[in-house]
Amino acid sequence: MAECAAVMEKFLKNLLSSRKGYEGKLYSAMSYASLKGGKRLRPFLTLQSAKLFEASEQYALRVGTAIELIHCYSLVHDDLPAMDNDSLRRGRPSCHIAFDEATAILAGDALQVLAFEILSDPKTHPDPNVRVALVKGLAIASGGGGMVGGQMIDLESENCDVDLETISRMQRLKTGALISFSCEAGAILGKASVEEKQALIKYAQDIGLAFQIADDALDYFSSKKIFGKEIGKDFYEGKTTLPLIIIFQRGNNEERSFLKEIFKKKKRNEDDFSETLALINKYKAVEASFKRAEYFVNVSYDALGIFQHSEEKNVLQNLTEFSLNRSF
Amino acid sequence: MAECAAVMEKFLKNLLSSRKGYEGKLYSAMSYASLKGGKRLRPFLTLQSAKLFEASEQYALRVGTAIELIHCYSLVHDDLPAMDNDSLRRGRPSCHIAFDEATAILAGDALQVLAFEILSDPKTHPDPNVRVALVKGLAIASGGGGMVGGQMIDLESENCDVDLETISRMQRLKTGALISFSCEAGAILGKASVEEKQALIKYAQDIGLAFQIADDALDYFSSKKIFGKEIGKDFYEGKTTLPLIIIFQRGNNEERSFLKEIFKKKKRNEDDFSETLALINKYKAVEASFKRAEYFVNVSYDALGIFQHSEEKNVLQNLTEFSLNRSF
Repeated sequence: MAECAAVMEKFLKNLLSSRKGYEGKLYSAMSYASLKGGKRLRPFLTLQSAKLFEASEQYALRVGTAIELIHCYSLVHDDLPAMDNDSLRRGRPSCHIAFDEATAILAGDALQVLAFEILSDPKTHPDPNVRVALVKGLAIASGGGGMVGGQMIDLESENCDVDLETISRMQRLKTGALISFSCEAGAILGKASVEEKQALIKYAQDIGLAFQIADDALDYFSSKKIFGKEIGKDFYEGKTTLPLIIIFQRGNNEERSFLKEIFKKKKRNEDDFSETLALINKYKAVEASFKRAEYFVNVSYDALGIFQHSEEKNVLQNLTEFSLNRSF
Repeated sequence: MAECAAVMEKFLKNLLSSRKGYEGKLYSAMSYASLKGGKRLRPFLTLQSAKLFEASEQYALRVGTAIELIHCYSLVHDDLPAMDNDSLRRGRPSCHIAFDEATAILAGDALQVLAFEILSDPKTHPDPNVRVALVKGLAIASGGGGMVGGQMIDLESENCDVDLETISRMQRLKTGALISFSCEAGAILGKASVEEKQALIKYAQDIGLAFQIADDALDYFSSKKIFGKEIGKDFYEGKTTLPLIIIFQRGNNEERSFLKEIFKKKKRNEDDFSETLALINKYKAVEASFKRAEYFVNVSYDALGIFQHSEEKNVLQNLTEFSLNRSF
């Protein structure tokens, strides 16, 4: 995955090389928001999926980069004060802190459209049918019926009494749609059969869910000093995630009322968090969440069953193990 | 133009029909920001340009709608508090006032990507080469090297000592690029020759400039009661536009210093505006601006010279007359 990230980094750097004049700031902010970022899971999935069909790595890299740009723009807009109001992203100041809010909004807008410029370019694939299928797939995955719709559900469901179904739907749209498309894009590049494409989509949906559930559980995983991740972020933001739903299901009436009350409040304090953590421990909600993540990892393994044994298939299957190990 | 707007309205309404669940708010905001809006100049240009080549109206309408969605999203993001902070748009509360800032950011994001979903759909044109050319053209026109880049220059050049060249460049990117592409898209749909496409692009650039210059001049046109348009908006926002550059060129040293001083201030008051208006009148800067707009109208007329006389060509030429009449 590190190798794929390095090649993509170089390509992106070239693409966003600094411009003169007043719009130079825009390109600096676009670079800031898209370079040196994260694990690059999405481009890696595109590259590995494309390899299953022996499709060109060069094409897959461009497509993966386009998908990653959509992911990066969504993080920039998500971090804005009007949205999640996060001033840190991957240990660095968020884009609107490093620059300013207006620049962050525009940089997000420009990163989004750059993804479609890349996909529509003949360098991405000589066949216009492939390019236009990629554009359509990315547009659907990242639009109102996909990623942006999921973000809206996420914002709207804060401080609300939501159920597992709503949360699953939100996650399927907010992060699942783009992860699925990352694999689907490899299948499009490889001109895969409908069955092969469906298998990869299913695989991606399952590992997407496993990642998400593990992340949600880590928010209540109290060994933060070991893992370096702050805990309680979702809790203080009023986000209902799987561990909460589990204690809601397993708890008694009194405990349910307590949870409802503290999530009705505009702000939750440290005492609220301590009491919730006690319930999480009492009902083993983190362990139960990880079990659910493990279930999806197993299911994702099965989804690849239609592909013959190969080095490429192995990499995808090891990825799901990685996603599980990451959680413990 | 009204007829084109009505057909597009119906198509958009269908496309954005309300959704159930938590993301319903997103679709309401998208509808609010894109329905009942403006003159629909851009789709009209696409439709009329396509008609020059007898290309399908139905296809042109879909393409024009996609372009209009980009225009609408840019207005939603432009109005945000961190950007121009406008609470009114076309006499109604701006999207972030009618809903909230987070929803407005997401609605803008979703409108942008919807444009690319429409263009990539086979209903837009059976030939994938045409669809992918439309995607690429729209992406370039609206991205960091086009519309968004222009917005960045606009924000960065506020309160700065900018020259005519910078302003022209900003306008060419901020509004010119999308207006040009509106005509170019008609040529792409009509599989026009390179010369025909270039002629239409030139025409669109010229009328775009004429519109922009007329709009800038109206900001200092003191008969606001007659025209119903507020004056001084650009002035108070610290935007350097053509009328100011004209008095800067024609004025004496003292007047130049006065202008520099008041544009260095964070905020300008009514006295500053009255004194500036006096200079505008003294040096006939509004009239000079309109003269420049008229020049571009004439040039745009010439650009269509390579097309044979037709009803469709007439409509495009009358449009430039309309753009001039609108100013006086």
